[in-house]
Amino acid sequence: MKLATYKDSSRDGQLVVVSRDLSTAHYATGIATRLQQVLDDWGFLSPQLQDLYESLNNGKARHAFPFEPARCMAPLPRAYQWADGSAFINHVELVRKARNAEVPPTFYTDPLMYQGGSDDFLGPCDDVVVASEDFGIDFEAEIAVITADVPMGATPGQALDGIRLLLLANDVSLRNLIPDELAKGFGFVQSKPATAFSPVAVTPDEVGEAWQGGRLHLTLQSTWNGRKVGLCEAGPEMTFHFGQLIAHLCKTRNVRAGSVIGSGTVSNKDWTHGYSCIAEKRAIETIEDGKPKTAFMKFGDSIRIEVKGKDGQSVFGAIDQKIVAL
Amino acid sequence: MKLATYKDSSRDGQLVVVSRDLSTAHYATGIATRLQQVLDDWGFLSPQLQDLYESLNNGKARHAFPFEPARCMAPLPRAYQWADGSAFINHVELVRKARNAEVPPTFYTDPLMYQGGSDDFLGPCDDVVVASEDFGIDFEAEIAVITADVPMGATPGQALDGIRLLLLANDVSLRNLIPDELAKGFGFVQSKPATAFSPVAVTPDEVGEAWQGGRLHLTLQSTWNGRKVGLCEAGPEMTFHFGQLIAHLCKTRNVRAGSVIGSGTVSNKDWTHGYSCIAEKRAIETIEDGKPKTAFMKFGDSIRIEVKGKDGQSVFGAIDQKIVAL
Repeated sequence: MKLATYKDSSRDGQLVVVSRDLSTAHYATGIATRLQQVLDDWGFLSPQLQDLYESLNNGKARHAFPFEPARCMAPLPRAYQWADGSAFINHVELVRKARNAEVPPTFYTDPLMYQGGSDDFLGPCDDVVVASEDFGIDFEAEIAVITADVPMGATPGQALDGIRLLLLANDVSLRNLIPDELAKGFGFVQSKPATAFSPVAVTPDEVGEAWQGGRLHLTLQSTWNGRKVGLCEAGPEMTFHFGQLIAHLCKTRNVRAGSVIGSGTVSNKDWTHGYSCIAEKRAIETIEDGKPKTAFMKFGDSIRIEVKGKDGQSVFGAIDQKIVAL
Repeated sequence: MKLATYKDSSRDGQLVVVSRDLSTAHYATGIATRLQQVLDDWGFLSPQLQDLYESLNNGKARHAFPFEPARCMAPLPRAYQWADGSAFINHVELVRKARNAEVPPTFYTDPLMYQGGSDDFLGPCDDVVVASEDFGIDFEAEIAVITADVPMGATPGQALDGIRLLLLANDVSLRNLIPDELAKGFGFVQSKPATAFSPVAVTPDEVGEAWQGGRLHLTLQSTWNGRKVGLCEAGPEMTFHFGQLIAHLCKTRNVRAGSVIGSGTVSNKDWTHGYSCIAEKRAIETIEDGKPKTAFMKFGDSIRIEVKGKDGQSVFGAIDQKIVAL
């Protein structure tokens, strides 16, 4: 099934069920008002939502209305956890190669992951508000999952069973603030502003065979100012699958229901696939020409991030945002 | 007023108002069931809780019962944000001096801060569950605050106005996992397991003059296995006050209601005050004798963290935890 959260001027919005083709929606009123509630009590509530979803798909839901992504908050407008991996090691290799730095051998066995702010997520069509273009504004197109409870010490296989929903993320990054924060070693605080998510989050069965071994085998499209800049394969080159990322996170603590885990920038070795973040394009330019040519984003720029299924239909709806000045 | 959250086997527990002397409590039923609700709608709900608090202090609350800290969850059992500063630069100086590393000059103007996991906080008397003693189990006694909404770009002064509640934290740390995570630069994921908080969170007026300029001018007591090891002043040597910490966090993003911000390990230049984490004791030993003598915590160890007011009464109740094996 497909779930979204409609804006209603409250902090958590209103849970809606969205039809498979993203054409219609239906309030989940009577079942649950918020997605976190459903994640807290999945066994009891999700079958009821699934019934509503089927009625909706069959055109039999009584109060269906046209689905408008612009009215969406993030599926979880605020979450108790956002932990973003850097699971595509090719991204790390590129960025490091551009600055003549080695990739430590442990990076191939031990995932990079940072804990992000989760108190103020952006909806798919919300503006990205930044104080200055000098911060080096970049998008990062990612796949993400939302979890059930996963106990401390869970194996990657057990962690895979704790994945409830899939969605897309735009992990907005302020590149020029990153070097100083990286040097401090304490992770990202200022260089990672609010993260945006796709209009809908979907249960893994929605993508059928494309969800395999904790990886989403579909193409992630990134369109910057109307120009398609990335058509990256999100599956085969994901060095650590989502079960491994979650197991990394829960090595020393419990991961609780409603945790959002990101893949990091989707990245392919074959450069003809394009890029899912500008930093990578600049890294390639630096490797080829000694210096970056492509500038970061400006106020007024737009970024669209989407995944289409084998049938050509949008799976999650599109993240479609504009960069604006504070 | 003083607020706590009682265990009721739900994820968020039941909000209770606690008397000033911590002797009695009263369910906030009819006003709010969860602390996050109150933070989301502070202007409307907090005066009602304040009324109940006054009745309770006057012995006039009808269904008052004896307050038992052991029945408490963290005041916010899960939160949308936990960002922990390292505001006592003396702590950083000590730890670095012990390993012959310099403190970068920017550390005196730009706070160190990491984003922590906030999906699974521990109650004040909950066990600290760790898989192995080899991880180097340590406590970190800290002061923390819970915020209102603080908008992106707020000044330290504006951020100070966004502080709703004060409390204590035990930011449990796994010291032997820290060096590898620090080297990766992405912050702490595995080396910071679940954080514990004091039984009650209090509004700043509860400590009167002791709350000054975003610092708590009281003594933080740490008692390890029944032995008082730290009597550290939490006020004067806090390099960055809480308004500065929050302003650092909200430089590029909004901080939303219910964010928990920590001071980092409370630390004094005068070693006779003792220590608020074992790592610091070991750093002092290393500086004096070339190597650490004090071992980290073992299974079965206990740690008690408390602050007493000018009147000698416990302000927040005590964090009182045992280390146990997974």
